[in-house]
Amino acid sequence: MSYGIGILGAGVMGSDHARILASQVAGAHLVAVFDPDRARAEASAGANGARRVHARGIDLIDDPEVEAVLIASPDATHAEFVLACLARGKPVLCEKPLAASAAECLQLIEAETKLGRRLIQVGFMRRFDPFYGDLRAGLEQGGLGPVLLAHCVHRVATVPGYFQADMSITNAAVHEFDILRWLLGQEIAAVQVMRSRRKSTATLRDPLMIVLETDQGVVADVEAYMSAAYGYDIRTEVVCEEGTAELARPQPAAFRRNGSVAAAYPADWRGRFADAYRLQLQGWVNGVRSGVPAGASAWDGYLATIIADAALKSLNEGGRVAIPAATRPALYR
Amino acid sequence: MSYGIGILGAGVMGSDHARILASQVAGAHLVAVFDPDRARAEASAGANGARRVHARGIDLIDDPEVEAVLIASPDATHAEFVLACLARGKPVLCEKPLAASAAECLQLIEAETKLGRRLIQVGFMRRFDPFYGDLRAGLEQGGLGPVLLAHCVHRVATVPGYFQADMSITNAAVHEFDILRWLLGQEIAAVQVMRSRRKSTATLRDPLMIVLETDQGVVADVEAYMSAAYGYDIRTEVVCEEGTAELARPQPAAFRRNGSVAAAYPADWRGRFADAYRLQLQGWVNGVRSGVPAGASAWDGYLATIIADAALKSLNEGGRVAIPAATRPALYR
Amino acid sequence: MSYGIGILGAGVMGSDHARILASQVAGAHLVAVFDPDRARAEASAGANGARRVHARGIDLIDDPEVEAVLIASPDATHAEFVLACLARGKPVLCEKPLAASAAECLQLIEAETKLGRRLIQVGFMRRFDPFYGDLRAGLEQGGLGPVLLAHCVHRVATVPGYFQADMSITNAAVHEFDILRWLLGQEIAAVQVMRSRRKSTATLRDPLMIVLETDQGVVADVEAYMSAAYGYDIRTEVVCEEGTAELARPQPAAFRRNGSVAAAYPADWRGRFADAYRLQLQGWVNGVRSGVPAGASAWDGYLATIIADAALKSLNEGGRVAIPAATRPALYR
Amino acid sequence: MSYGIGILGAGVMGSDHARILASQVAGAHLVAVFDPDRARAEASAGANGARRVHARGIDLIDDPEVEAVLIASPDATHAEFVLACLARGKPVLCEKPLAASAAECLQLIEAETKLGRRLIQVGFMRRFDPFYGDLRAGLEQGGLGPVLLAHCVHRVATVPGYFQADMSITNAAVHEFDILRWLLGQEIAAVQVMRSRRKSTATLRDPLMIVLETDQGVVADVEAYMSAAYGYDIRTEVVCEEGTAELARPQPAAFRRNGSVAAAYPADWRGRFADAYRLQLQGWVNGVRSGVPAGASAWDGYLATIIADAALKSLNEGGRVAIPAATRPALYR
Repeated sequence: MSYGIGILGAGVMGSDHARILASQVAGAHLVAVFDPDRARAEASAGANGARRVHARGIDLIDDPEVEAVLIASPDATHAEFVLACLARGKPVLCEKPLAASAAECLQLIEAETKLGRRLIQVGFMRRFDPFYGDLRAGLEQGGLGPVLLAHCVHRVATVPGYFQADMSITNAAVHEFDILRWLLGQEIAAVQVMRSRRKSTATLRDPLMIVLETDQGVVADVEAYMSAAYGYDIRTEVVCEEGTAELARPQPAAFRRNGSVAAAYPADWRGRFADAYRLQLQGWVNGVRSGVPAGASAWDGYLATIIADAALKSLNEGGRVAIPAATRPALYR
Repeated sequence: MSYGIGILGAGVMGSDHARILASQVAGAHLVAVFDPDRARAEASAGANGARRVHARGIDLIDDPEVEAVLIASPDATHAEFVLACLARGKPVLCEKPLAASAAECLQLIEAETKLGRRLIQVGFMRRFDPFYGDLRAGLEQGGLGPVLLAHCVHRVATVPGYFQADMSITNAAVHEFDILRWLLGQEIAAVQVMRSRRKSTATLRDPLMIVLETDQGVVADVEAYMSAAYGYDIRTEVVCEEGTAELARPQPAAFRRNGSVAAAYPADWRGRFADAYRLQLQGWVNGVRSGVPAGASAWDGYLATIIADAALKSLNEGGRVAIPAATRPALYR
Repeated sequence: MSYGIGILGAGVMGSDHARILASQVAGAHLVAVFDPDRARAEASAGANGARRVHARGIDLIDDPEVEAVLIASPDATHAEFVLACLARGKPVLCEKPLAASAAECLQLIEAETKLGRRLIQVGFMRRFDPFYGDLRAGLEQGGLGPVLLAHCVHRVATVPGYFQADMSITNAAVHEFDILRWLLGQEIAAVQVMRSRRKSTATLRDPLMIVLETDQGVVADVEAYMSAAYGYDIRTEVVCEEGTAELARPQPAAFRRNGSVAAAYPADWRGRFADAYRLQLQGWVNGVRSGVPAGASAWDGYLATIIADAALKSLNEGGRVAIPAATRPALYR
Repeated sequence: MSYGIGILGAGVMGSDHARILASQVAGAHLVAVFDPDRARAEASAGANGARRVHARGIDLIDDPEVEAVLIASPDATHAEFVLACLARGKPVLCEKPLAASAAECLQLIEAETKLGRRLIQVGFMRRFDPFYGDLRAGLEQGGLGPVLLAHCVHRVATVPGYFQADMSITNAAVHEFDILRWLLGQEIAAVQVMRSRRKSTATLRDPLMIVLETDQGVVADVEAYMSAAYGYDIRTEVVCEEGTAELARPQPAAFRRNGSVAAAYPADWRGRFADAYRLQLQGWVNGVRSGVPAGASAWDGYLATIIADAALKSLNEGGRVAIPAATRPALYR
């Protein structure tokens, strides 16, 4: 009755998924873990009730008790593991990015299309966030009229030392690209990155102001600021013909003292998207059990990648970069 | 590995608990359901994967696969069922009130005390609500100094037809009594109910303004308004020597149109406390599995009942009603 | 064309009125100042363009260029000065309280009634505050239905050393008494002061929770907290049959840094009611020029005094104190 | 003692200035009005206590009782009237734009520079708005570090029929250009207008997203939306190295009913900037009396015009338009 899950990767993301799966998700249990660092694989397995640690990722995928696979291994390994899951007909939740390049994404799409059924879900967890859900429901009710503009803010207090220049786009802003597509039901047609004055202590080109255009003419500006210092702050306002809709946020208690009223910001994404990660895992398990896929598809993963590629080109070369329209395969309609 | 749960009652509360347990809680599964109305017992069992429906409550409690019992049956049956669970050494989560009278509560406390270990948890779910947790953590940090006052608002849009006069206190305000004790770490020493102008369409004496005094001299006013019309609205502000702390609330998206900015209120407690109910169940399951009890104890259930009794006396007879100090048995310290 | 004003008193209030009159009010100018402390009278006169400083208050009232008088002298002198103004037919704006006792207030009412026209305005400046005006307009639109309850908060960061026990009521809470009458269009029928735990560093009985009842059965609680530390904070929420209306406040800029978003509170009433004081003076000048009195009347000043007297009785003796209904003279209808 | 003011123009702006001057400003009075439409000149004069209506603008400027002149006549007449005031040494408050073209602005600067003292103030009233003042004070305190980005929103519910395409920039966005210079203490170095999807019912190219760059590399996006429908909404957030500062707004009462809590938006600029207009007039009168100029100078008026010209070029021709650095004459340092 309970579904058996295997997790590839026992780093920050992988072990967090393992913890959530074991302690907050109904209908599934952790069976096995793989990580090249065996000690941390065992730590994650032990803390979360998994029976086995595998020596190779492929062994975990082959494990008969593993009915579905969660991939939280390094980006370069995603495509290979996803293909192995497809070959065995096992549903897979792959952390973003779907693959290390647009070309690899297309290989996965081709394989899944041949298979003729959707087994791949990509970890754009915001689609499960109740605040985005509330915003989208409000937009769909229709009283606001067509969308004209959007304003997004993506602020991270600080990033770790290994965070490289491109990651402002491939790791952070890519969430905005995906969620705007999902919120608006439109495709991104062009992107232009404006470099602003650089934060004096930042090694990154930080912050960035990214201007997106959709295939229906909507313009959206996205602030991506990886060293915002004060906290983790995600905002979206969608501007329509008859009014605007603004994303809410988890609300902390307010404290009045020392001459002001203050409310805390979360230090990082865990304080903002904990519920989205839990609901993503529950939604994936439910989807796997019911056979009705939920969340972002391989196609969504591919589009996020080509938008990010275009944004990187604009960042590095300047100017507006158009994104050619892509034909969505029937499987993803 | 997964814990077997039986639920007594398949009404609104019972079937909601069953749904949450089956769809959102890790480490437990629904085994059996009992309800005098067999059809609705079967509906709840069927929808949530329970194997059995029992003909009598006691049969469910006796069921060897039922490792712990959730009581959501009518108030009058609570004491009997709780005693049966204690007799069999099975942990029990009992919806509030713990029992139909203070005397019955004391019987359960006596039984549990004899047993020498805590098996009873009372369903004051607010103790698991993240917003109250955030508020309490802020108070405990200490920067605000001693508490002097508190203001509470408990507004319900509408109540069903069967809602009787006393229930403003026994069903609604009782949550404020428990959570104030929990927030402040103080005992309620007196209560006075002020009758305000009655809502013209209300059959209840509605709204009520209830003034509580704690054993440390803190005064708290509680508005209990069962026909507040606009939505379900719960607030607390705690006033301290150096500042105040205010409970946050789930934040909905904001919509600007037609000359104003508006944010929706939930229609009822489900929109406000869904997370608290989920976390209560998860916390109970974790507590049962680990042997470390969580949440409100039988002693807390007893105190909520005697405060409610005093409030009812004040409502019916007028004036301030003192609540004698009670000695907490060692088991509950 | 410009109206000549004389001000009695050059203390904090008097010199502030002089400054506002000279720098922010159209259609009037400061002619003369009186204060027993001649040096500070001269300072106020000099800074604000007044031509004369008088040796006695009565001389200022007699000054033919003084067309209207503002009284900001000690409370004990109010009645005498107001009577002198009435005797000379000069309009007068008297800082609250109208007089030192209810009996004195009645003498002034008798004198004004004999005169047959309203010359007295009492300085309840909140009636000119745009935020209270906005709240009252919203209530009068009618969509909320009859009022059932009200919640008021009156917090002052700190009070000066000369602030005596009674002043929490006669100086602070009295504003709430007047504005509730004005907002609700109802009379206060009873008052009960609850003493809460005392702030450890307060010499006053502080804070107080005051429960008011109106002649239409509305119950209002008023928190009066004179050492609230964090800032000056005034709130009102009016609870009606179909919803609630909440007083807005001047909004400061929000600053996000160090893990939170914060907005400053004003240190005292000047940061909150500067606009109300300006608009009160402008409204008084306009009223004097047009012959149509504005703001609180002598009758309002009398009622504020008897409510404060009743609250003091409750504070000192405990219990609920009823306020006998008073018949409003025709002049004040 | 009271200063004599003449107003050129009795349209919406001119008569509003006349009303504010007569009813809310200390130290000045309206002497004379001119408008080609004599009837409306007489209406404005009559309602606001002016003694005279002049047949020609130049006659008003020559009027010996007119000590200072407020220009609210059509844009094309500004330069001529300002020059006439300079020739007579009379201080002048000129509604924006300072003149109809950058070239005309430079003529006025040349004339004032020759005169050797500042007599011209330009009506960028936001510089007197308390909310912008609060924001700037917060930025100047320094705790936030250098500015990196800014986000501005300028939404107007609806514009009148005569509102032409260019006016989104010359009439609306120009306020953002001036206030950003004032807030940041930086010069605008480039501008790029992004055309978004057009509102279906708009005859204008509406809304616009305008991206500004300052001479210190700060990037600011400005949404200019002239048919925002829901109300008049002005926002600014300044993003710095250590946090952000956000402009506050006048706060209306909140009403809870029908399932939500709502707060009204003003219908137009009068509900947002009434205080700024009053304080601008008071500040101008104070500046005229003290000889110390306040507010925006002719130089500020010139820069606003050349930024607007560049924005129009970008709107019409596309792409980023650089604004050459200009050398500020000594008079304006």
